[in-house]
Amino acid sequence: MTPSDIPALLARIAAEDGAIGSFWQVDREGALAATPAGRGPLVGVAIGIKDNVDVAGLRTTAGIAAFRHRVADRDAPVVRRLREAGLVILGKLAMHEGALGATTDTPGFGRCMNPLRAGYTPGGSSGGSGAAVAAGLVPLAVGTDTMGSVRLPAAYCGVFGLKPTSGLVGRSGVVALSPRLDHVGILAASIEGAALGLEAMAGDDPDDPDSRPTPPGWRALPAAPADPRGLRIGLPEPVLAAPMEPAIRAAWEAAQARLREAGAILSPVPVAGWDLTATRRAGLLLIEAEAAALHPALVDDPEAATPGFRAALAYGRDAKGVRIAQALFRLAEARAGALRALDHCDLLLMPTAPQRAFPHGTPAPVDQADFTAIANVAGLPALAFPWPAPDGDLPCSLQLMGPAYGEQAICALAAWLLRAR
Amino acid sequence: MTPSDIPALLARIAAEDGAIGSFWQVDREGALAATPAGRGPLVGVAIGIKDNVDVAGLRTTAGIAAFRHRVADRDAPVVRRLREAGLVILGKLAMHEGALGATTDTPGFGRCMNPLRAGYTPGGSSGGSGAAVAAGLVPLAVGTDTMGSVRLPAAYCGVFGLKPTSGLVGRSGVVALSPRLDHVGILAASIEGAALGLEAMAGDDPDDPDSRPTPPGWRALPAAPADPRGLRIGLPEPVLAAPMEPAIRAAWEAAQARLREAGAILSPVPVAGWDLTATRRAGLLLIEAEAAALHPALVDDPEAATPGFRAALAYGRDAKGVRIAQALFRLAEARAGALRALDHCDLLLMPTAPQRAFPHGTPAPVDQADFTAIANVAGLPALAFPWPAPDGDLPCSLQLMGPAYGEQAICALAAWLLRAR
Repeated sequence: MTPSDIPALLARIAAEDGAIGSFWQVDREGALAATPAGRGPLVGVAIGIKDNVDVAGLRTTAGIAAFRHRVADRDAPVVRRLREAGLVILGKLAMHEGALGATTDTPGFGRCMNPLRAGYTPGGSSGGSGAAVAAGLVPLAVGTDTMGSVRLPAAYCGVFGLKPTSGLVGRSGVVALSPRLDHVGILAASIEGAALGLEAMAGDDPDDPDSRPTPPGWRALPAAPADPRGLRIGLPEPVLAAPMEPAIRAAWEAAQARLREAGAILSPVPVAGWDLTATRRAGLLLIEAEAAALHPALVDDPEAATPGFRAALAYGRDAKGVRIAQALFRLAEARAGALRALDHCDLLLMPTAPQRAFPHGTPAPVDQADFTAIANVAGLPALAFPWPAPDGDLPCSLQLMGPAYGEQAICALAAWLLRAR
Repeated sequence: MTPSDIPALLARIAAEDGAIGSFWQVDREGALAATPAGRGPLVGVAIGIKDNVDVAGLRTTAGIAAFRHRVADRDAPVVRRLREAGLVILGKLAMHEGALGATTDTPGFGRCMNPLRAGYTPGGSSGGSGAAVAAGLVPLAVGTDTMGSVRLPAAYCGVFGLKPTSGLVGRSGVVALSPRLDHVGILAASIEGAALGLEAMAGDDPDDPDSRPTPPGWRALPAAPADPRGLRIGLPEPVLAAPMEPAIRAAWEAAQARLREAGAILSPVPVAGWDLTATRRAGLLLIEAEAAALHPALVDDPEAATPGFRAALAYGRDAKGVRIAQALFRLAEARAGALRALDHCDLLLMPTAPQRAFPHGTPAPVDQADFTAIANVAGLPALAFPWPAPDGDLPCSLQLMGPAYGEQAICALAAWLLRAR
């Protein structure tokens, strides 16, 4: 990748981000003083960091009032890895309160705008990451994704969002919401950027219980776009049957047509146990219970967070054990269904979300994460990539999901689709 | 293995099992009528099945009063596989009520005796499986293991008990206690029997969400005993620091000495996150919540089960969500610690239990499963094998635990140790 013109990006942030609100902190001095070493592909490339990830000397608020003044005394391991790869951190990015929600309209912190249309949400929870990349303020941005929080802002903002295989990117130094479902991922202006960024972030983190050593030979960046001939591409039946904007269904079908023409074998695949609504509800309950266990002090302090956020955590805290157990069963069934679907095809192709970006202030659709959460539940990698809207309106987004550690195969097919679209 | 003399075994059960109580049902007609086909190593070999596993036409009580009259209308897939391998099912074996406990003193069903000493417990929850094998009534017996329920009766009865890698043996048709931790395993009079029995049981079960296809080339039976030279064998620090009977510690140290003499590299290994007491409590709470979700009708019906069993399920049902979340964190940490320990050594060696069999009617030690539960939590294979007691009393038992799908390596080293002991 091309090294960034850091002073030019800082000037652009100063000039343009007032209207967008993607940066909550700009580390002007740190960015200008950075002297990235090495010769890798990311040396000198600018990156922004979601505000729930520790960057030494900067605040880590997670969009939570109680954390407003917390300053990290050291980099999270994932940030340390990015610095070691030569990336230059420009600052901390807006997010939905506590990463629990997908509009990035965060009381007390600001309403982040979608650079593609004034007054519209960039999605979330990594809304600042999506907006900053879409506005050209950074080529790369770190996000986190518990049910879709990297891929939804990528979709709404028309950029790329890659959520890796569980355990590939360490999460210590990241404000946790649900260790069972949390992932650190990357948003980028290109597949190359997403893949290289993820390669820089990947690696064992002994302080994250679920982190694992990177498998030998693992890569995310493909050597070349995939040849779709003979590839078995599954279209998940629960998504085929789900409501979605007509333009999004049309975009999905256009991509299917390109792949078929090129010799790929497309077919609907059942995903047993993946009931969209039941999986969403089970995931949310688990998140609320885990978040309550991690952040008990937030629940009962009216000053600590918004009433909505506190009520969600209180709900999880007080839910009966039997309901958590039922949620775990649901999630295990959905996970099993996804793994089995991938026993019978190479990749799954589906839209990233049922809708495109919508105006701030309108109620958030309940089904925003219905197509994304399965990858968190199953621990599988998924890439959101933009697809032109058949109606000429805001861009659509499609999603490829693959087997564990299949990031390279996903990126290779997405690269082919980008050429073919 | 040698085909069993079925009529002779049936006669022996009739003559001797009255005093032991290992069989709750004997399928005399079915066993005599069986005409096992094929030429595999298990054709004609007799096996008993724990009473929480469905065998067509026989009762599946799980030792629970409410299930006393339930008759299975089909074989569980694991039983079907055993029949296909030519095994002859002699009947259903005693177990602790609901598989939640480790003495096999089951009100309304009977008190199973340890064949090694009158009046002593065979352990549990697969106590009938351990007792039947130890008494020579069957060479093989199916058990289930949620925190140690295959390996504890193997230990107390002086036989072999193998709990496989998670997902290797399907669990549909088995009365579930905790899908997160339940495993189906095997007890046997020899390593060969345990390994061949497991090979017969292994295989995908689409009705068990956590089941997975068997990896190509996977085996449990070793071609030959392992050569310990250069093997890195870890001694888990939490177990080194735990209280245990002096004879058990001496047995463990004797096995270590044999291995060192033969050139193995033994060393203490930390298992971060594995606090014995905290892991036990977290595991129990999860089991109680999952069992309550699976068996809601048992909780409030005084006729359905014993007050103790019902109280345990009620406790899990009513526990707050935040406590379940905390338990999940604990288990994730212990799992991570076990996986990391095995990143740095080939196998872990430890005792199976801190104590040997004890008299029925005395309080069950709380730490019975403290050394075994970690393999359930981590999803890793573990074999319990007998070791002569240095004090000449009841046999001791040691346990080898290995990486996922490492059953063959475990059995190979246990085979070497049996020769060396």
